[in-house]
Amino acid sequence: MLYEINEKAIQLQNQGKKITKLNIGDPDLATPPEIVEAACEAIKKGRTKYSSGFGEQTLRNELGKIHGVSADNIVITPGSKWGIFSTMYLLLKDGGNVVIPTPYWTAYGLIAKTLGVEARFCKTELDSNWQVDLQTFEELIDNDTRLIILNNPCNPTSKVMDEKIVDGIVKIATDRKVLILSDEVYSKISFVKTKSILDYDNNNILITGFSKMFTMTGWRIGYVIANRELINKIGKLNQITFSNVPVFIQDAALKALEIRNKLTNEIREVYCNRAKIASEILSNSKLEFSKPDAPFYIFPKREGLDSEKFSMKILDKGVAVAPGTSFGDYRDHFRISLTAPEVDLRAALLKICEALDE
Amino acid sequence: MLYEINEKAIQLQNQGKKITKLNIGDPDLATPPEIVEAACEAIKKGRTKYSSGFGEQTLRNELGKIHGVSADNIVITPGSKWGIFSTMYLLLKDGGNVVIPTPYWTAYGLIAKTLGVEARFCKTELDSNWQVDLQTFEELIDNDTRLIILNNPCNPTSKVMDEKIVDGIVKIATDRKVLILSDEVYSKISFVKTKSILDYDNNNILITGFSKMFTMTGWRIGYVIANRELINKIGKLNQITFSNVPVFIQDAALKALEIRNKLTNEIREVYCNRAKIASEILSNSKLEFSKPDAPFYIFPKREGLDSEKFSMKILDKGVAVAPGTSFGDYRDHFRISLTAPEVDLRAALLKICEALDE
Repeated sequence: MLYEINEKAIQLQNQGKKITKLNIGDPDLATPPEIVEAACEAIKKGRTKYSSGFGEQTLRNELGKIHGVSADNIVITPGSKWGIFSTMYLLLKDGGNVVIPTPYWTAYGLIAKTLGVEARFCKTELDSNWQVDLQTFEELIDNDTRLIILNNPCNPTSKVMDEKIVDGIVKIATDRKVLILSDEVYSKISFVKTKSILDYDNNNILITGFSKMFTMTGWRIGYVIANRELINKIGKLNQITFSNVPVFIQDAALKALEIRNKLTNEIREVYCNRAKIASEILSNSKLEFSKPDAPFYIFPKREGLDSEKFSMKILDKGVAVAPGTSFGDYRDHFRISLTAPEVDLRAALLKICEALDE
Repeated sequence: MLYEINEKAIQLQNQGKKITKLNIGDPDLATPPEIVEAACEAIKKGRTKYSSGFGEQTLRNELGKIHGVSADNIVITPGSKWGIFSTMYLLLKDGGNVVIPTPYWTAYGLIAKTLGVEARFCKTELDSNWQVDLQTFEELIDNDTRLIILNNPCNPTSKVMDEKIVDGIVKIATDRKVLILSDEVYSKISFVKTKSILDYDNNNILITGFSKMFTMTGWRIGYVIANRELINKIGKLNQITFSNVPVFIQDAALKALEIRNKLTNEIREVYCNRAKIASEILSNSKLEFSKPDAPFYIFPKREGLDSEKFSMKILDKGVAVAPGTSFGDYRDHFRISLTAPEVDLRAALLKICEALDE
């Protein structure tokens, strides 16, 4: 229902209605001017031709340096989502299942459904601070398991996985010879330290993007770090699908990397502040929730709530949120993205609290 | 081998070698300044957020007016190639076969192969002016045929299909209840009149893009016109793959439409002139070929040539062309893209003629 609500919110906006869009992780902040300038310069220089399906060599080299891997282990994708879709398609098209902790980012479930892939879910709960139970997790894995998907920090909970839990999952995956796809799009702007899948010495897959780190959501650029065989397959799939990420967008991304520390510090500060504000306001409601470890979300719960109905109701009042059912079996939760300016965010959060009491 | 040669040509360029790239349909011409300006303006205005998987309403409305269809029958894609991939994926994922005249654009064959779809080829020949034999064509269709792919004008031959042949194929498709996907990316800049699939009153699929019409290859934007059911499925697939074509690119495309007559006239004139030059130079060689009806290609033949070896040999001499085997069973043909400035084009064509005699 996540995308339906988004399409409806866009329609309402097109009709001239004011909607505070807390339904998707699309920051209200503008893309930093240095990145904007780099893109315009590149377009004007004629960086508008076909290019490699693997991405620009300059960008791959720079990412290789940052992550301490060879450029040959990196492929540029139109957003991290394409990295996830293409990896799932390539690893699972001949059958097999994928194991995913929940609540999960909506796209994982929808991609599995579209591809006709069996997804096995390991449910985590607010009461246990959203941590994965390793025994339950391992029981879901069998000889047909081809992939584990982790999202650390997690969308929709904004929780960071306990290091020992990540250690445990990596151990299970190694023992059972299953690849891990680790979606780490929020890690560089996390409020607390996170463990990366690249910290482990094995054959796993890191997927991330520029969207969240640099407020470049609509630019559609991300990347995959993996073994060369998979990178080669994704690059070839890129060639026969979208050809290449526009070169001028890759040039803009290269600029973002150049000033990455400044930018990520700024973004982290803004969202840390918003997370505090939201936690304060929601503490006065009847909602239960865990405080975010990272941007952009809070995933509150109210016993007995039908969040699908609630999301439609609150959309009519000019606030878009995402129902918990978009993230797994969480009908009594909903997700709030803290992606609006403070004034709008405060007003929208108060509307949410009021609507819960109606 | 088309993409391998392209990746190799890019590598050689990265090493500082001068390569005249006549291997892909990527014009040397710059994207028109009005389009560049529109893109930069849009980026600076903050048109850099997530948007609809179906495309911007303004752009869909304008395309709807131009083609005389409802905006609901249009979805914006990252290049026409994504339109073809997603249509083939959605219509053929549960089995069935696709019928395609050859020589075909490389991507059709590679997509079918990647998706594990049976592709049935209807071979056409230079000797019969590349026209489809309707009886042979019909014999390839059976109860499992889900799709016919036409490319009019054709890449790599640059021939326009005879109107009566298109009529005949549409009749066969209608009788046999098979959908036609018509890839018409070169039609608006064709030197001669072409028949569009939208001229027929039925349920077919038009796929086209901005790349060739407006020298916007590396921008990656195209669109599909089809029945609402298919448009809805493609829009949903967009949501879970690349999310949306960047809005600022859609704004640039909208600008291109505004001045489309001026731009397409200019592009047509340039390529018509290059086609004449190439025909003159190649007439003095031992190559057989048909004169192009449209941009960007010539697909000459030399009895007994191994075009894969020839392509590698000529790449070493600084000219990239595409071997005929990339377009079906045409080892003794190769494809020349007329996508270099006149001086470079003349020099490269002369090198090709010389190399044939070595």
